[in-house]
Amino acid sequence: MPRLSQYVSALRPSVFATLTEKMKALGQPPIPLHLGDTFALPPPSARWENLDLTSPGNYRYSHPFGLPVLLSELAAKLDRHNGIPATPEWLQVTCGATQALHCSLQALVEPGQSVLLLAPYWPLFGGMVRCLGAEAVEVECAPRLLRQEVTLTQILQQAYKLNVKAVYFSNPNNPDGYVYSAEQLQQLADFAQQHDLWVFSDECYEHYLYEGARHLSLATLPGMAERTVSVYSFSKSYAMAGHRLGYAVAAPPIMNSIRRLANHTVYNVSPSLQKAGLETLRQADEFCAQWAPVYARERLRMARAVKAPLPAGGAYFFPEFSSAEAAWDYLERALQAGVALAPGAAFGEQYAHCLRICFTCVDEPTLERACQILAALA
Amino acid sequence: MPRLSQYVSALRPSVFATLTEKMKALGQPPIPLHLGDTFALPPPSARWENLDLTSPGNYRYSHPFGLPVLLSELAAKLDRHNGIPATPEWLQVTCGATQALHCSLQALVEPGQSVLLLAPYWPLFGGMVRCLGAEAVEVECAPRLLRQEVTLTQILQQAYKLNVKAVYFSNPNNPDGYVYSAEQLQQLADFAQQHDLWVFSDECYEHYLYEGARHLSLATLPGMAERTVSVYSFSKSYAMAGHRLGYAVAAPPIMNSIRRLANHTVYNVSPSLQKAGLETLRQADEFCAQWAPVYARERLRMARAVKAPLPAGGAYFFPEFSSAEAAWDYLERALQAGVALAPGAAFGEQYAHCLRICFTCVDEPTLERACQILAALA
Repeated sequence: MPRLSQYVSALRPSVFATLTEKMKALGQPPIPLHLGDTFALPPPSARWENLDLTSPGNYRYSHPFGLPVLLSELAAKLDRHNGIPATPEWLQVTCGATQALHCSLQALVEPGQSVLLLAPYWPLFGGMVRCLGAEAVEVECAPRLLRQEVTLTQILQQAYKLNVKAVYFSNPNNPDGYVYSAEQLQQLADFAQQHDLWVFSDECYEHYLYEGARHLSLATLPGMAERTVSVYSFSKSYAMAGHRLGYAVAAPPIMNSIRRLANHTVYNVSPSLQKAGLETLRQADEFCAQWAPVYARERLRMARAVKAPLPAGGAYFFPEFSSAEAAWDYLERALQAGVALAPGAAFGEQYAHCLRICFTCVDEPTLERACQILAALA
Repeated sequence: MPRLSQYVSALRPSVFATLTEKMKALGQPPIPLHLGDTFALPPPSARWENLDLTSPGNYRYSHPFGLPVLLSELAAKLDRHNGIPATPEWLQVTCGATQALHCSLQALVEPGQSVLLLAPYWPLFGGMVRCLGAEAVEVECAPRLLRQEVTLTQILQQAYKLNVKAVYFSNPNNPDGYVYSAEQLQQLADFAQQHDLWVFSDECYEHYLYEGARHLSLATLPGMAERTVSVYSFSKSYAMAGHRLGYAVAAPPIMNSIRRLANHTVYNVSPSLQKAGLETLRQADEFCAQWAPVYARERLRMARAVKAPLPAGGAYFFPEFSSAEAAWDYLERALQAGVALAPGAAFGEQYAHCLRICFTCVDEPTLERACQILAALA
């Protein structure tokens, strides 16, 4: 056999794989709080109810950038909701935010360059950077740190080195729910401009906000539209993870390159799925308003069972333990008691002493059972 | 603005883009023989008729490799139809053959390495190689050449150089419909083994065969399963291009790396689309048997209008003209007369004197009109 790509071979096996093996050995499936999903059933439009799917166009090749009518609707949403004055030329519809980030990364970063990942971070992005033959530099940026005297500017400047080409962060953050302040975003923007960097702004959890927390899109800051790729997802906002619908947003000179990559990865996103997305987007505010209080209740319920800072956004608690061993021991005991949690090591080398606990992925009665199990363990 | 990836920026603009601009200037849309599609409406199963889509599982994250039941059904098809003794461990369901090839390429080839493309070739694969920072080496391999004294072995040996890591070919070939003989496949296999190369075997047109032509899967040759990635598509075989469903097949040690890439590009393929694919696969033989004679008639109809070798497989004629200028002149005149054709330059640097003409993308009466227009031009 010839040699596989060294970059792909070098990917560390996911710690999730170990967890999956352990789960298989259980008598019955645990309550799956290790997932990153919502239990909400998406609106009927996402299930194609009352949508006409007879047109042959649904089964043929479609527009590589996305259906024009969906691009227009997304541009309007970005302007209204995010304050990004996007037009359809700023947009690429993708197979989930995953493909949006994958294409954006490959369009902007070359093998041998480095990308700063504000850690803890969404694991797949680290893998994408490594698969490309670029370097993923984990920058410890936990909320605990950011609440102290050190500024984000100081953290970033310390991590900087010559071949850094881009920064990745998610806001609200997966896994710890951190929501960046206007001041911190300005520090990040100044840093990116000083060193002429790209920024990948992962905003998948933009609709998961609690107690008045406010999410700001980095691209709205002066000078940032020309160096930011903002990424969004239908998966979290509208409970449609199965459909794999997301979108990347960037100024046209950047978008032209991202679009070429998207075209070379999947050609186009299924028009039937895009139609489901379009109808859903048209009733999105109502859907989000309906589910926000449910997630807020689930967050408070979990807060009573787990000792961890209350996340301002997102779908997770990310408690710290005294050591990596203590965290893994808790994970094992929770699993034996019927609750699956995600190992912290997946989210950065410095986080093996943490666990990620999703509070939106099961309904309230199931979450209540899980909370009782976890409370009894602590 | 920071610098974009030099590899992506260096992609030549598609000659299709010029064609698209010209088409926009027309009073009414031309008959689109420049496409690579079929006019067939897919079976009702592909349109989810009688399929239950109420299960919440359709709207949640799904298995990254593909639905287990679909993997089993595909393994059975590969064994029965292609003679590849695959098991589900050999498979990754993808967003079309496009994603299958993209992931396989990135899993096996590194920036700086070279890939031989048996030309003329499917344009997107060349772009994928270049986006990765690898070198796409076009190897002139036109049927005209292969019918002469020179053997495929001689052609390949002449193209070989030290950093060549892989070979890409499609069989039946897009754009010229060439179907490789058992002897030629053996020569390709010997070459790959001699130089320890990967082979990407694009078999999207496996069901498009005429007058007894027989398609053989390279992976069935001795010693080739450990170095071949075979790629298939629901788009052509079952007229489902809009759904973007395809699959990559390789021995498990290779597949493990491809799966990691697939996971990092789109996470999973929509379960609703996979269910449509599964039901369709179960009635595939009937569907293919129904459409084969239609495509065969369309091929003969086109043969009467265009002077070009009759393709043994695929969906296209690929006539040669006396020069690039003569070909482009014919394309322009056809367009003004109401028929769009694909410029040959898209399929390799050596093919600007050719045009690609699809005979499966419109129904028989429309094709008849197109043929009359083309015949009058010649």
